[in-house]
Amino acid sequence: MPDTHDSFSALRERLARFAEERDWDQFHNPKNLAMALAVEAAELMEHFQWMLPEEAAQPPAHVRDEVALEAADVLLYLLRLCDKLGIDLAAAADNKLALNEHKYPVEKARGRSTKYDKL
Amino acid sequence: MPDTHDSFSALRERLARFAEERDWDQFHNPKNLAMALAVEAAELMEHFQWMLPEEAAQPPAHVRDEVALEAADVLLYLLRLCDKLGIDLAAAADNKLALNEHKYPVEKARGRSTKYDKL
Amino acid sequence: MPDTHDSFSALRERLARFAEERDWDQFHNPKNLAMALAVEAAELMEHFQWMLPEEAAQPPAHVRDEVALEAADVLLYLLRLCDKLGIDLAAAADNKLALNEHKYPVEKARGRSTKYDKL
Amino acid sequence: MPDTHDSFSALRERLARFAEERDWDQFHNPKNLAMALAVEAAELMEHFQWMLPEEAAQPPAHVRDEVALEAADVLLYLLRLCDKLGIDLAAAADNKLALNEHKYPVEKARGRSTKYDKL
Repeated sequence: MPDTHDSFSALRERLARFAEERDWDQFHNPKNLAMALAVEAAELMEHFQWMLPEEAAQPPAHVRDEVALEAADVLLYLLRLCDKLGIDLAAAADNKLALNEHKYPVEKARGRSTKYDKL
Repeated sequence: MPDTHDSFSALRERLARFAEERDWDQFHNPKNLAMALAVEAAELMEHFQWMLPEEAAQPPAHVRDEVALEAADVLLYLLRLCDKLGIDLAAAADNKLALNEHKYPVEKARGRSTKYDKL
Repeated sequence: MPDTHDSFSALRERLARFAEERDWDQFHNPKNLAMALAVEAAELMEHFQWMLPEEAAQPPAHVRDEVALEAADVLLYLLRLCDKLGIDLAAAADNKLALNEHKYPVEKARGRSTKYDKL
Repeated sequence: MPDTHDSFSALRERLARFAEERDWDQFHNPKNLAMALAVEAAELMEHFQWMLPEEAAQPPAHVRDEVALEAADVLLYLLRLCDKLGIDLAAAADNKLALNEHKYPVEKARGRSTKYDKL
């Protein structure tokens, strides 16, 4: 059975070693990392900004490859930020999904678009 | 040994079921999901915007708890987006880290802040 | 004839007085203001994230009113940031539009969507 | 006396003509423009992400010049978005500043950093 905690841990530790070897911990303040995360999320979004929704659903292969690299950047900064704040990201995701399952019961939420929150 | 692929898969599948049960797949176009991801990243960042770096490094417990929930939202939208585009997020993260290890060799990058990319 | 320079100046001065009276200059570092600007831009965008493009073109009146307030926040932080950095925003806008008119000549750019930059 | 309304109008009309001549109105849906606005705000912010606040307060001249161009992009997309939605940006800014002056009375707000909203 997959162990989400340990898997996130492996990436988190590899990132910490990467930063330590380069003496980049000095830049990895949560304020800076939150900015870097938002910048990477915007770079990912930029690929879709002039596309119609139907184009975005089937992007060309080279766009998909670039989006994959931006998605990786988002994940890496997110893991680094959580590490610096002592946040267990896998546990937080479990917790948030359980909250959403309670907040949006199937019978009430079905097909409605009135809420901003969609996860 | 932890299997990162399978762990991300478990969360991805739980999210897909969550959306399907609520008939929310119709809203989960990559364009919309990229917007939602950027919005959540900004909400996370908002917690740090008026803090000094040293305050951000040691936020109060209630702020840390709120940041954990925002971090979860970022991860969940990111996983959903990757699922919709057929992107293997764990493989993309491995790939990006390997690229960065090559791009920023330890002996050259040590302690330098001249580059934007810090992971 | 309207004088863009003087009009921006009037708003800029009113904002400076607003911050000075409240002793908020201490928070108005360019780094913090750039974060606040990005947060407000995301809050504006949030209103459109689950809309189809055709819905976004004709939003309900109450959404339009909320977007107007978010747009004001974006402008106010942008002016404050420029003031703190000694940037003449009206001159920068004139300069950028002239650059774009040169970069995208009418006969070549007509109807093409291949470029990200659309202004 | 400067007339904010007329000055914003002049820029707005120049932008509308720019888009019309290039047949780019088709891309200027409010949803797309809100995305472009958020992307430009992130690009502006990126210049400050690894700086200390004291470095951000006195950036090198070449950084200041690049920030000026990003600030112009933010303003141009903001004006274009408001034009498409029939929002009077100058009136909205006046309105929002009056709301903030009422919401944060000088005697109560002085020097306090507890609120997110700082304008």
